[in-house]
Amino acid sequence: MSGQFEMDALYMAHALRLAERGRYTTAPNPCVGCVLVRDGQIVGEGWHLWVGENHAEVNALHDAGDQARGATAYVTLEPCSHHGRTPPCSQALVDAGIVRLVVAMQDPNPQVAGRGFRMCEDAGIEIVRGVLEADAMALNRGFVARMTGRRPFTRLKMAMSMDGRTAMASGESQWITGPAARDEVQRLRALSSAVVTGIDSILYDDSRLTVRLPEAGEPAVPVPAGRPYRQPLRVVVDTHLRMPVAARCLSEPGRTLIATISTDETKRQVLERAGASCIVLPATPDGQVDLEALWRYLGQQEACNDILLETGATLAGAALEAGLVDEMHLFMAPTLLGPEARPLFSMAGMTAMAHQRHLHIEDVRAFGDDWRILARPRIQG
Amino acid sequence: MSGQFEMDALYMAHALRLAERGRYTTAPNPCVGCVLVRDGQIVGEGWHLWVGENHAEVNALHDAGDQARGATAYVTLEPCSHHGRTPPCSQALVDAGIVRLVVAMQDPNPQVAGRGFRMCEDAGIEIVRGVLEADAMALNRGFVARMTGRRPFTRLKMAMSMDGRTAMASGESQWITGPAARDEVQRLRALSSAVVTGIDSILYDDSRLTVRLPEAGEPAVPVPAGRPYRQPLRVVVDTHLRMPVAARCLSEPGRTLIATISTDETKRQVLERAGASCIVLPATPDGQVDLEALWRYLGQQEACNDILLETGATLAGAALEAGLVDEMHLFMAPTLLGPEARPLFSMAGMTAMAHQRHLHIEDVRAFGDDWRILARPRIQG
Repeated sequence: MSGQFEMDALYMAHALRLAERGRYTTAPNPCVGCVLVRDGQIVGEGWHLWVGENHAEVNALHDAGDQARGATAYVTLEPCSHHGRTPPCSQALVDAGIVRLVVAMQDPNPQVAGRGFRMCEDAGIEIVRGVLEADAMALNRGFVARMTGRRPFTRLKMAMSMDGRTAMASGESQWITGPAARDEVQRLRALSSAVVTGIDSILYDDSRLTVRLPEAGEPAVPVPAGRPYRQPLRVVVDTHLRMPVAARCLSEPGRTLIATISTDETKRQVLERAGASCIVLPATPDGQVDLEALWRYLGQQEACNDILLETGATLAGAALEAGLVDEMHLFMAPTLLGPEARPLFSMAGMTAMAHQRHLHIEDVRAFGDDWRILARPRIQG
Repeated sequence: MSGQFEMDALYMAHALRLAERGRYTTAPNPCVGCVLVRDGQIVGEGWHLWVGENHAEVNALHDAGDQARGATAYVTLEPCSHHGRTPPCSQALVDAGIVRLVVAMQDPNPQVAGRGFRMCEDAGIEIVRGVLEADAMALNRGFVARMTGRRPFTRLKMAMSMDGRTAMASGESQWITGPAARDEVQRLRALSSAVVTGIDSILYDDSRLTVRLPEAGEPAVPVPAGRPYRQPLRVVVDTHLRMPVAARCLSEPGRTLIATISTDETKRQVLERAGASCIVLPATPDGQVDLEALWRYLGQQEACNDILLETGATLAGAALEAGLVDEMHLFMAPTLLGPEARPLFSMAGMTAMAHQRHLHIEDVRAFGDDWRILARPRIQG
């Protein structure tokens, strides 16, 4: 463990841990960490914490002061080259006298995409790329998905019984899973730019869809020093504007967006007075909100990197059929709800084994008495 | 690791590994292993392999010869005291000059139950009990269950999709799970005295219900030297004697028992000519085979220690409702079969969360691309 290659990986791993400190607060920006090393000593550390505030490199340079001159900079993402909310970090590294730059991944932002490297190279800085690239990509999955023009990275969260049921036939479902699983859902919400649900979750459970401090014990999401939790945008798919004005989510901190196909002006105005924003989207042939249009809107107009879809069989089935689900987080409780209970996914026309939808299970682990199954849909052949 | 306590555990662990060699062949007898130790050296090893053949102690005494005199005997089960198919092992240990006896568990067989200990004690042998008792009990769960007068230990095996479905609505189900899961099912069959299924499995899949060598690769169940696989009794729950005479299971090695409520003599004679045995059992109020009566029959008349229930929603639901399932082995495949597919369990009247059936999940692990969930029903409050 003494070669340059090993030391580069070691310092980059440290920079990634620093980057993670921003995972609940940097969106729509990516998480970035930076470590400055001179003569085998860490002389500066920095990370991006909140959109509009200093980038990781600038924080690390401040931390290092004069000692940055002649140092190697380890940055988890290519330094920016454009004047955005802050001046370009590439220029700052050059000005500070950095002589070597080690980077995990190129910036997928088309405004940067290699220009940051060029700016440093032109100033004579030696550049090493791709160190722990997969970890850096994984940390910024949503940012990468949005920047490469696709759409927000989407996690589908569902709670189910061992017989694959999400609620009784009546809609009753509180609570299938236990406190440890619910804490993890809080963490998934905090990771997300938007939480999307169907109107049924509001009507049955009056879900608040917020990130909250636990009633007891350590919070699953670290509380940002001196600030409240950053609340994800709450998005309710509400085809016919059935949202009650007294819904709890409308009076919580943060914004609630109602996605509808209804053009009923009166209902809309009532809901907007109650605190919601409304957006009218195209309808699918079977009269539902066009989810692809909604996802496009959330990526392009709301700059959402990560979406958490928390919902029941109908909306989950539609999102899966539309190819919008990247990752499934299924919390399986040690219980049976029986054959009359609601299914996991509503999907039409599945009558033969040839119609089955293949998934890949990445991980199964315990959360208290429940088990989380982490799966990805496979591209159908 | 040098005290008597630690050495006793070490030799008993070795005796347990020897006992395991009989797990696919000793039923209705228990698995037993024996190690003889003199002056810190193993001088004899033995295990019970096949019903009607030598017990573990006798095999170990043969192995040790003269060196047994003055030795300590480690036995996983209390030595027998009765003249059964073989003379009592307690007497053999006394006759061989064993001076100390370390045993994992008392024999639950009412014909022994402490008498073996007494016979040895009376001869002046020092006795230590309960060393690795839980492991010894786990190895002989079925034998203990039957001997303590309850009924055979019952494992329910099912293959399901991630949305908790066992077959398409048409009954099509081959194959939900992959080769590794199917190998494990072969192992579960080999562990069992009887494999119980419903007539639908025969009608849809023409299941053979036998233990078979794999088409390629290492067998999941070791082949007994110079002998064929011991085939479990095949039991088909066939309320109205719909079993086809051409069913493959009727011409496989081993016996097939049809459990019915039908008194149709003609059908019965046809099936018996085709190789089946039939047993007419009481009917439940809703006209099904009384499963408790069947389990009692299998325990008392067929001396079954372990039952593997391999079946679909209807029979599985009935067995679960009757409290006959001790352990569930659910093989979950990374696929979705959709809301029209068959449920995991047919159970009536589950309309509110208060009706849910709680389970305890003991273990979740991968078998190839599938995951096995090992669960136990919880006693309902």
